[in-house]
Amino acid sequence: MEALRCLPGVGPKSASRMAFHLVERDRVGAERLAHALLAAAEGVRHCRRCRNLSEAELCSVCADPARDASLLCVVETPADVLAIEQATGFRGQYFVLMGRLSPLDGIGPSELGLDRLEARLDEGQVRELILATNPTVEGEATAHYLAMLARERGIRSTRIAHGVPMGGELEYIDGGTLAHAFSGRREV
Amino acid sequence: MEALRCLPGVGPKSASRMAFHLVERDRVGAERLAHALLAAAEGVRHCRRCRNLSEAELCSVCADPARDASLLCVVETPADVLAIEQATGFRGQYFVLMGRLSPLDGIGPSELGLDRLEARLDEGQVRELILATNPTVEGEATAHYLAMLARERGIRSTRIAHGVPMGGELEYIDGGTLAHAFSGRREV
Ligand SMILES: [Zn+2]
Ligand SMILES: [Zn+2]
Repeated sequence: MEALRCLPGVGPKSASRMAFHLVERDRVGAERLAHALLAAAEGVRHCRRCRNLSEAELCSVCADPARDASLLCVVETPADVLAIEQATGFRGQYFVLMGRLSPLDGIGPSELGLDRLEARLDEGQVRELILATNPTVEGEATAHYLAMLARERGIRSTRIAHGVPMGGELEYIDGGTLAHAFSGRREV
Repeated sequence: MEALRCLPGVGPKSASRMAFHLVERDRVGAERLAHALLAAAEGVRHCRRCRNLSEAELCSVCADPARDASLLCVVETPADVLAIEQATGFRGQYFVLMGRLSPLDGIGPSELGLDRLEARLDEGQVRELILATNPTVEGEATAHYLAMLARERGIRSTRIAHGVPMGGELEYIDGGTLAHAFSGRREV
């Protein structure tokens, strides 16, 4: 029960319910979960190209030659990649900031790996930079900063459209809304 | 994410939130949880005396000489023992049915280990049998059956009092209500 409390949203009552469920009714599931946790805790790192979580040096999106390298979508978190992959038909590639610009917290361009993003834009393959940061104050500021990097290189940048409610978190939006916002993206 | 779905109440959204949280922010917690799950899945069995879940042959309550062997509280599940231990000052012992009488589901006295309970009543130490089964139709029927076993041996039996709402589950009741119901138990 104690160990289950490391899961977000799991208080004492849920932890005891989960523990009893596993021990009384699903020991196979408990062992399977244990091995998955160990594999994830030991094996998951960041993709060398897009910074997304990955068990290999290159994540499955970056390693897939069928993905369109001319479309690069920038998101804040790995959960955002998952949400977009599940909800939309996007076939381009990603760059995961693992955060957003937040000078007060000491998070600037280098903490977000923007040097690597700039190098990638300099490669010349990207024709559209899709800015899919969250519509929060910091997410908007990050999008503006990224748009500037694109503009400096003559690369078109777009922002995912309204439909994502202001102040909301991309990760928790229903798939339909997210798909709509994604396909309705507009020039910045 | 897939493996986390074995936890009760965890859907796809919570599973992904939990997985990202663990991998991005709490790998130590993930490993700790993995080892706890393995230990529980491999090491937890039933106490030889009371049938509660235990890692040893005798659970900590049965092994504790300070617990009063003249008070025997019968509950349906290990979660009920935990709830009573946390909410009340009960210092007697337990017998865990691991279910309730349910003839339609093929659960009769032998599935609930009542032969072992009868043997224990025959030992002559128990002076009060506290019936703390849930106030559901099957829980009440089970309590009546247990009261009969006690009466046959001239042992007093009590039922935990109102305060536990009818149709409710003991495990989910707030501690205050449960403590009140427990101390207000009455002769059957
Ligand atoms: Zn990648
Ligand atoms: Zn025991």
